[in-house]
Amino acid sequence: MVKITKIFFLLLFTLVFTSCNDSENTKSTDHTDSGHPRLILTKQGVKDIRAQLGTIPVFDNSLKKVKEEVDAEIEAGIDTPIPKDYSGGYTHSRHKKNWFVLQKAGLLYQILDDEKYAIYIKDMLKQYEKMYKTLPLHPKTRSYARGKLFWQALNDANWLVYVSQAYDCIYDYLTEAERNQLETNLFRPFADHISVDSPQFYQRVHNHSTWGNAAVGMIGLVMDDEVLIQRALYGIKGKEMDKTAKDDDGGFINKDGKAGFLANIEEPFSPDGYYNEGPYYQRYAMYPFLIFATGLQNAKPDLKIFEYKEGVLLKSINALLNLSDADGDFFPLNDGQKGMSYYTEALVTAVDISYKYGDKDPGLLSIAKKQNRVLLDDSGLAIALDIKKGKAKPFVKKSINLSDGPEGKQGGVAILRNEAIELVFKYASQGSSHGHYDKLSYSLYENGEEVIQDYGLARFVNIEQKGGGNYLKENKTWAKQTIAHNTVTQNETSHYKGKYEIGSQNHPDLSYFSIDNTDVQVVSSKVANTYDGTDMHRTMAIIKDQDFEKPFVLDIINITSETTNRYDLPIYYFGQVLSTNFEYSTPKELKTLGKKHGYQHLFVEGFGRPQKENSKFSWFHNNKFYTLTTETLSEDQLLFTRIGAHDPNFNLRRDPSFIVRRDNTTNTTFVSAIESHGSYSPVTESAVNSKSTIHEIKTILNNDVYTVISITTVKGNNKIFITANTDTSNETIHTLKISNKNYEWSGPYYYK
Amino acid sequence: MVKITKIFFLLLFTLVFTSCNDSENTKSTDHTDSGHPRLILTKQGVKDIRAQLGTIPVFDNSLKKVKEEVDAEIEAGIDTPIPKDYSGGYTHSRHKKNWFVLQKAGLLYQILDDEKYAIYIKDMLKQYEKMYKTLPLHPKTRSYARGKLFWQALNDANWLVYVSQAYDCIYDYLTEAERNQLETNLFRPFADHISVDSPQFYQRVHNHSTWGNAAVGMIGLVMDDEVLIQRALYGIKGKEMDKTAKDDDGGFINKDGKAGFLANIEEPFSPDGYYNEGPYYQRYAMYPFLIFATGLQNAKPDLKIFEYKEGVLLKSINALLNLSDADGDFFPLNDGQKGMSYYTEALVTAVDISYKYGDKDPGLLSIAKKQNRVLLDDSGLAIALDIKKGKAKPFVKKSINLSDGPEGKQGGVAILRNEAIELVFKYASQGSSHGHYDKLSYSLYENGEEVIQDYGLARFVNIEQKGGGNYLKENKTWAKQTIAHNTVTQNETSHYKGKYEIGSQNHPDLSYFSIDNTDVQVVSSKVANTYDGTDMHRTMAIIKDQDFEKPFVLDIINITSETTNRYDLPIYYFGQVLSTNFEYSTPKELKTLGKKHGYQHLFVEGFGRPQKENSKFSWFHNNKFYTLTTETLSEDQLLFTRIGAHDPNFNLRRDPSFIVRRDNTTNTTFVSAIESHGSYSPVTESAVNSKSTIHEIKTILNNDVYTVISITTVKGNNKIFITANTDTSNETIHTLKISNKNYEWSGPYYYK
Repeated sequence: MVKITKIFFLLLFTLVFTSCNDSENTKSTDHTDSGHPRLILTKQGVKDIRAQLGTIPVFDNSLKKVKEEVDAEIEAGIDTPIPKDYSGGYTHSRHKKNWFVLQKAGLLYQILDDEKYAIYIKDMLKQYEKMYKTLPLHPKTRSYARGKLFWQALNDANWLVYVSQAYDCIYDYLTEAERNQLETNLFRPFADHISVDSPQFYQRVHNHSTWGNAAVGMIGLVMDDEVLIQRALYGIKGKEMDKTAKDDDGGFINKDGKAGFLANIEEPFSPDGYYNEGPYYQRYAMYPFLIFATGLQNAKPDLKIFEYKEGVLLKSINALLNLSDADGDFFPLNDGQKGMSYYTEALVTAVDISYKYGDKDPGLLSIAKKQNRVLLDDSGLAIALDIKKGKAKPFVKKSINLSDGPEGKQGGVAILRNEAIELVFKYASQGSSHGHYDKLSYSLYENGEEVIQDYGLARFVNIEQKGGGNYLKENKTWAKQTIAHNTVTQNETSHYKGKYEIGSQNHPDLSYFSIDNTDVQVVSSKVANTYDGTDMHRTMAIIKDQDFEKPFVLDIINITSETTNRYDLPIYYFGQVLSTNFEYSTPKELKTLGKKHGYQHLFVEGFGRPQKENSKFSWFHNNKFYTLTTETLSEDQLLFTRIGAHDPNFNLRRDPSFIVRRDNTTNTTFVSAIESHGSYSPVTESAVNSKSTIHEIKTILNNDVYTVISITTVKGNNKIFITANTDTSNETIHTLKISNKNYEWSGPYYYK
Repeated sequence: MVKITKIFFLLLFTLVFTSCNDSENTKSTDHTDSGHPRLILTKQGVKDIRAQLGTIPVFDNSLKKVKEEVDAEIEAGIDTPIPKDYSGGYTHSRHKKNWFVLQKAGLLYQILDDEKYAIYIKDMLKQYEKMYKTLPLHPKTRSYARGKLFWQALNDANWLVYVSQAYDCIYDYLTEAERNQLETNLFRPFADHISVDSPQFYQRVHNHSTWGNAAVGMIGLVMDDEVLIQRALYGIKGKEMDKTAKDDDGGFINKDGKAGFLANIEEPFSPDGYYNEGPYYQRYAMYPFLIFATGLQNAKPDLKIFEYKEGVLLKSINALLNLSDADGDFFPLNDGQKGMSYYTEALVTAVDISYKYGDKDPGLLSIAKKQNRVLLDDSGLAIALDIKKGKAKPFVKKSINLSDGPEGKQGGVAILRNEAIELVFKYASQGSSHGHYDKLSYSLYENGEEVIQDYGLARFVNIEQKGGGNYLKENKTWAKQTIAHNTVTQNETSHYKGKYEIGSQNHPDLSYFSIDNTDVQVVSSKVANTYDGTDMHRTMAIIKDQDFEKPFVLDIINITSETTNRYDLPIYYFGQVLSTNFEYSTPKELKTLGKKHGYQHLFVEGFGRPQKENSKFSWFHNNKFYTLTTETLSEDQLLFTRIGAHDPNFNLRRDPSFIVRRDNTTNTTFVSAIESHGSYSPVTESAVNSKSTIHEIKTILNNDVYTVISITTVKGNNKIFITANTDTSNETIHTLKISNKNYEWSGPYYYK
């Protein structure tokens, strides 16, 4: 079905554009709305907005803030300095500011019908035109694709995406002569520089290229230039790329020859709308996708861009919103900086456009209310009007499984949610150059607080003092490595040996995802080839049981291997050790856990051996109690570690972890339960439910077909969890006899 | 003036009570209100409350909650088990719960006029009476003063303080025969057990004794028993204590023979209302002080207990509220657990009583609103009525200096506040057995967040898994030691050698405290004898200067010594190292900084040497930037440390510090500035004002008379700060010539 739809669209696009594909500057004729503005703001939109102004609070407030900002800029005067700086330097910041102000001034001109904004834009564009026609490459040489206004073509593309919108808004205000001058000396050569002159930037599937495609396409739509629109949608015609070349991040520049906006939609998004680099980079990439799509939708509605690939662009917004915790912070999968949330500007765009061009989900209105601002265009008006009408409903995040890969067949990310608990299970593909080596890893949240963390990236974005705000070397040596994540590392070596070439050719597969019973939600995934000859199968569940105060996590990892190995399974908790049921020693001097693959960054703070068949570790954080109960063997090692070794610039957080280490083992199983329980009040100084509810967990059967776990609570109640390891169909009826008791159930798991 | 007032009161008390001092059980006759209830709730109060019920939201809500709680208890039935457990065990918890429920049931009986509450109290008291008359000492032996219902007499006293109130409420409901039975078999022997039978608990100046005094006094007031009232106010008549005996905490039990409620007001409170152990213990001690005082005020208004020692009890409430940060959390001076705040029950009592019996500060109403509950008595009614009338105003905390010591002559605590910045400067006396060895230390807050922390205590109060919830041994080995604080340690040895005997005989003295100019607020204090032959003088200022975004801290420490020493000055910051202007190395393995006096708990994470005359250290925490700029010598050592060594049970937090170490030095000066600046948004990913405003600080003159500091900002502006080291009078006119420039000013400091 996916394939058929795609082919249909490709045909449709080809039909629409082929007729005018060969002649330069031919005007196309399928505009429903033939005047300007036509991209993001439309003529009808302007009419509607003007009619409602003053009666739509969230829109009016957004307008007021934008007006204040632009008026201050107009007051301060125009500056288009000769480019010379890297990011952070004056000329960079000034040109960046200019693009935002131009775009906003365009909106103000249309909405307020005040000529001063048109004059401001015209004057600034003329200065750019004058400078650009003789402007050489930017003098800084660090980029793989240099721009002219900026040190990297990416920023030139950013500029054009925004400035196209400003040009659209004053298009009709300018004379034809003025337009010709701007288009000939500025816009067309500008679009050429970031495309035909920079194919290593433009002609690939990458978030950089998406900006490039959108920039070329946006200005093409304003100028009604089919050559540029074609180039935007399909890439540079006839341009062949070196398929073995790599970029600075180690990713292939273009190993399969794909390029253009549609290919950029195809590749990174799964049919469920999951973006392969993860939510942090999706958020960054969303703007050009959505803004150019909106431009296409308005200027070329027959293309139905929002239905392309079964509506993946709008689905991706829903996916992205679901990839955030209770506070709206995105889960920091792969290279993600913590704290980025749906309050970011790009998500205002995403939410507004999703509402206007999607199915009017009233949950989006509640997010827009929290964002407390809207786009000053047709979509912002739609949101503001419906908020005013009281249509907002809570955006309820439910458990969700998001497949990864262009066809949805390269693993995925599953989020299990029950009450305040959120389990993020990552069984996704490599995630392009920003991916981490953390197959079958997870993180755990409660009420938007991290309980078991994903470290995220090792970078302080835009904080100059920390490596210029760029990726720190510890991102590679620590953050990407397997041991930095809550999954199994074998023989102190990262998955796929930490090599992108291997990682990007492999991925886990879903065994099953079951959320029909809210009380027992399960996800299960297998991966081969993380290590030669070793297969891993992890099943994680959130279980709400009446003996327990809150839903608890059950975690089962089955490892089969042809070799004898050391396995390390960490949990990156927060806070302070409260109690254990095993003795441990703490060294007088702290040494590192290992030498490579991230191990060199861990200090060992404590060392113990199991004393019972279950090892228990309780900790205390933010006035809450947590307990890990894990099946252990007497020869296992139990390690308390802390991040921070070999960190000469204090780039890493001093966060703790608890590691179960199992040596000299071929096949093995790790079975654990994690409970969040009770609370402490420093005001009343009373501790409530500070102890685990679990008396014992025990694997009572484990073979190729089933894994059976017994859970006994301190009240003496016993529950059995069975997961099917091979036949995970929902329809299959299973029967199993254990200790003379017969179990019969249908579907991939049993819990009672 | 202080002394005269005190003598007047002592005379007054003596006159009032002497007449009836010798005869047992004589009824006194000075009641204005001769019936019951007469202590906390009064007959008139009951009448007023009943008239207003249903119209005073905060009171009505508080009543509703209490009623629900008590009704559930009545439903569950009465249980008065034979005592056998320590804290946390069932019999302990049950008797503790009983005291609270009895007291609340008494209120409900009076307010709701529903006999079921009186019956409940009567029935339970009869059970207690039956048990108590033959009850032996509590079987657990750990306490220095065992109770009968509880393992320690302290808890028996708690019980009686509450239960007296219940008895007061049903006094008139009971027959004389019933009263006689209860008084003869329960209350009088109960009061005797915690007083005459437990002098080591009762006959001293200590927060335990205050509970004992209040308990005996409260039941004395209900029963109108002058012997008990006298014993409460003045201690056990004729009882001489061993003046050299010590308690478990190392404090003297009674080295000067003082005892009784009035002595317990005299000793720990300074005339400003500062409680010598600090706010955390003041909060704990407040309840018996205020509840017995209120009982005295109502039952014996002529005594004017709230005017005793110039109204110190009400002043102490104001002091306590000012010893909290912007969120209402008390500063964790000495043994203080972080997070304790004015939301605690004891502070509801304090605020309500302070409002009713004090000068009706409308600021208290705003705190009561935040607390969102009131006492169900006359004071709660007064608060609720005035909240309802809209009289609440913000409680504005200003800069304040609180003297320490019974006469206000043993140092103190100064809090400098400007905008969101709060500097807590501790130059107090030892602080009794809960004191820390941290003369002239400080902590710094911004908007209620800790910037430079005081570690607080090493204890997890009532969290059983951590040493039974009691003080951990790390409280002595770490938290009390000087190096755990933001002050100077000499030769890796704590102040006063870490010995209570020496510490309690010494204290710093105030040089000056100046807050007249809000923009330049200064506190200065000297201390001798922390080390033999070494004197320290610290001057700290919060300065608001137009070149700076926020007020910054200036810190000047002058040390004079007869010997050659090592000096260590730490700052306990939070978060991550951002940048330094000196190079440092980080060790591959972490070793401890030293062997004793807390040094054994610090790991060294980094080591550097100054490369300029100012060493700069910037850090990043909670999306804010901070910079320390400190004058250093090229031979100084700059150390990055982290708490956590020799911590076999993970009892300590892994918090960092930065230490300036100066070796082989006699006299020296540490001059530093601390700036909070800028912010970072992980949503917009923009860093604002991430760099220090200070180009250079420099000591340009330092002698016995003046210390002169030059501060040059990055804008090139220069400011001079001069502090007078000897003549700190406000009236003195100073003239000083430096580098051919004449400075003339009046008062202890100059800044321009």
